[in-house]
Amino acid sequence: MILATQNSPDWKTIAQQLVAVVGKNGVVQRREELITYECDGLTSYRTRPALVVLPRTTEEVVEIVKFCDRHSLFWVARGAGTGLSGGALPVENCVLIVTALMNKILKVDLENQQVVVQPGVINNWVTQAVSGAGFYYAPDPSSQIICSIGGNVAENSGGVHCLKYGVTTNHVLGLKIVTPDGSTVDLGGEISEIPGYDLTGLFVGSEGTLGIATEITLKILKTPESICVLLADFNTVEEAGAAVSGIISAGIIPAGMEMMDKLSINAVEDVVATGCYPRDAEAILLVELDGLAVEVATNKTKVAEICRENGARSITTANDLETRMKLWKGRKAAFAAMGKRSPDYYVQDGVIPRTKLPGVLQEIANLGEKYGYFVANVFHAGDGNLHPLILYDNSIPGALEQVEELGGEILKLCVKVGGSISGEHGIGADKRCYMPQMFTETDLETMQWINEAFNPKGLANPGKIFPSPRTCGESAKVNLPEKFPDVEVF
Amino acid sequence: MILATQNSPDWKTIAQQLVAVVGKNGVVQRREELITYECDGLTSYRTRPALVVLPRTTEEVVEIVKFCDRHSLFWVARGAGTGLSGGALPVENCVLIVTALMNKILKVDLENQQVVVQPGVINNWVTQAVSGAGFYYAPDPSSQIICSIGGNVAENSGGVHCLKYGVTTNHVLGLKIVTPDGSTVDLGGEISEIPGYDLTGLFVGSEGTLGIATEITLKILKTPESICVLLADFNTVEEAGAAVSGIISAGIIPAGMEMMDKLSINAVEDVVATGCYPRDAEAILLVELDGLAVEVATNKTKVAEICRENGARSITTANDLETRMKLWKGRKAAFAAMGKRSPDYYVQDGVIPRTKLPGVLQEIANLGEKYGYFVANVFHAGDGNLHPLILYDNSIPGALEQVEELGGEILKLCVKVGGSISGEHGIGADKRCYMPQMFTETDLETMQWINEAFNPKGLANPGKIFPSPRTCGESAKVNLPEKFPDVEVF
Repeated sequence: MILATQNSPDWKTIAQQLVAVVGKNGVVQRREELITYECDGLTSYRTRPALVVLPRTTEEVVEIVKFCDRHSLFWVARGAGTGLSGGALPVENCVLIVTALMNKILKVDLENQQVVVQPGVINNWVTQAVSGAGFYYAPDPSSQIICSIGGNVAENSGGVHCLKYGVTTNHVLGLKIVTPDGSTVDLGGEISEIPGYDLTGLFVGSEGTLGIATEITLKILKTPESICVLLADFNTVEEAGAAVSGIISAGIIPAGMEMMDKLSINAVEDVVATGCYPRDAEAILLVELDGLAVEVATNKTKVAEICRENGARSITTANDLETRMKLWKGRKAAFAAMGKRSPDYYVQDGVIPRTKLPGVLQEIANLGEKYGYFVANVFHAGDGNLHPLILYDNSIPGALEQVEELGGEILKLCVKVGGSISGEHGIGADKRCYMPQMFTETDLETMQWINEAFNPKGLANPGKIFPSPRTCGESAKVNLPEKFPDVEVF
Repeated sequence: MILATQNSPDWKTIAQQLVAVVGKNGVVQRREELITYECDGLTSYRTRPALVVLPRTTEEVVEIVKFCDRHSLFWVARGAGTGLSGGALPVENCVLIVTALMNKILKVDLENQQVVVQPGVINNWVTQAVSGAGFYYAPDPSSQIICSIGGNVAENSGGVHCLKYGVTTNHVLGLKIVTPDGSTVDLGGEISEIPGYDLTGLFVGSEGTLGIATEITLKILKTPESICVLLADFNTVEEAGAAVSGIISAGIIPAGMEMMDKLSINAVEDVVATGCYPRDAEAILLVELDGLAVEVATNKTKVAEICRENGARSITTANDLETRMKLWKGRKAAFAAMGKRSPDYYVQDGVIPRTKLPGVLQEIANLGEKYGYFVANVFHAGDGNLHPLILYDNSIPGALEQVEELGGEILKLCVKVGGSISGEHGIGADKRCYMPQMFTETDLETMQWINEAFNPKGLANPGKIFPSPRTCGESAKVNLPEKFPDVEVF
């Protein structure tokens, strides 16, 4: 059957064939409906997919992927679309496979502490499904009430509690995936000890380039007996940074340890008026401790001591849920609050060795001054995962480009001090041009071996992770792979 | 240069060329000296390598691997040779690359809690190097005073304390590897958050088939404030198993939780006479708790309660190092003690979901009876990692074959109840024939994609992990790969 060449496929016929797989309501092709799918949480770059298909089962995903393989069509998988690195950014003439309807919790096995879900299940639903029995799912991206587990797997998402409990990869026991040739493969399983190559670990964080997960087996943890939050405020960022180092050096691993700087504190107080974040503090530290009641009580005393030794002006603690939520409220609202401060903001995601915190924050402030933008800092201090928020106005011509350049300078700084260009948001389309900052050509080639093994035609999520010779500014817009697959007439 | 075809290479000339790389003392070629290298800890299968080469640096490894690549020579990497699945078993006409001289601790970074080592460094040396400063390296295979980190990485080794702290892969931050084409590649790094595919996780546990690690960055942990060991004895295995489930269900994660059955208890008391393992108990449980003193004290009370509720006849606890060592002494001597009970023993390594313990132990006893062999059980009860020890006499013709068949039946049983054919010893040459019990053909093909990407000529550690069409009994002996590399005249 000759439909068209790939560069101008006959999308009407394609849509008909996909309707035969997923039904009429599973295919979106009207131009105005496709707008929603032009970008993920990285809204500055947009590409409209040719059509969107919404499967409900592994079998339907197999049919769709095999169809794309047969006809050499690019395809991109998308979860809830909350990703921040353009990992689900469509390319021209692609099929966007959206997992929103694959939203079933397939199995809850409390005895073995695991849950099997479809990829479209929302992160928070997992905890909701098991909390009554005293369990929870640990990885908690800030978007946890709207982001999906499939997207979390693709981007190996982190969150506030990943300091103690690890990121998504530490909580995925097994996966059923559909590889780009349409095969169904089971990776991992229901126990931790699976022999052979660790393909589960390889797949988590592969950003949709190795296939699409259709069933995910997650570990769940017992809800801790006791939780306590401490809020400490400091006159300098250096003091707050020293307190962070002191807590870790004392052998305490808090469930979460977050820092906010003065600009963030004031933005938050303007909007949500927590009343407990002192506006004149240069930095606040939020430390959450969990475990046995006796353990939490002991560590609470130690953490308070360490904060005081490092210059904390005041310390507030909260044990009950309501007060804890009050202390967290400002941190949780921080990104949204920036939206009130500035027409637009750009969130960067980089990592530095924790010990380099104070120096790096100063250098980020210097860079902001040089470029003429305010940079607010709200971040996972315990593991050195920075989230500088650059405030700007996208209606000013050239502003975005400048902000991106500044963001890039911040990443280079992270790498220079021994850190990383991404902590938890992934590389996606946005950061692939920075990969050579962290990896040699040989390192990147070795990663490409994996891509070529799973995705030999390059049809699955093209233009992600790997740099192309193009310059950084263009990278997210021009995201076709270097090795364009052979055009097949079908 | 024409030396010979691969099937009868001119080893004298090859040895001369390798001497040029590593010096005269770095090449072993005398027949009597090569005997040592015929097998690893799985002594029942032996193949003499053509020669042994002992590099000291990454650069020397690169030269050796490139030499093998150029001349299509099989090569096998070997650490301390303590592996139990024949992962370092040579093949005919191979170069055995032994890392024994790569035994330097290259960097100790206490501030960032990490240590960089060469692969020949002995597991226990890492803890020795940092214990003075209050740190330790968590993975602790029973062979930890003689096994090497390189081998631990290859086999993703576990140990008693892996219940709480995870296996080797959870403690490796970064690797410098030499791939089978002789490239040097850096995987991971000095921080946890590294973007791109998780090649560090892929390499750990790849059993020498993807390359050879020449530098390994390990996480170290703070020594816990307090440690306590409880020894509980039971009238039935079922009761001990129920206590294990009860402890985990209560949300307690012991550092280690080990079980021994009556046969093991008595073998141990015969040899080391601990005096604290009651000979009439059907099972004993050793539970190690660690953490803050208050936490350990609280959990100790809870664990003792749970053991009593499940029928424990007596409970002994130990807080100080000396008494703790006394309680552990029998468990640590268990394998050696079997050597006094029986001329030979065969250690199996399988995993079952923890909840299936009592039933599976009964079925193992039944299988032992059917085959006419005693099977002792000493194992990591907390994570369901069984180590049945089959007692036999290798001088009786056919005994080994029967014992292997019995071992195979035990593995099939593990898979049947949702477990795994290996918990921590790896697949190596020994268990590859059981891989189809756990994985479909498609699953195994997907793993092979990785092997072909890294090891396209099949020269690195042939005949490991992947099954061949041959029957199980032959698998460890006949271990050339299915796809024999092209013979090159050199």
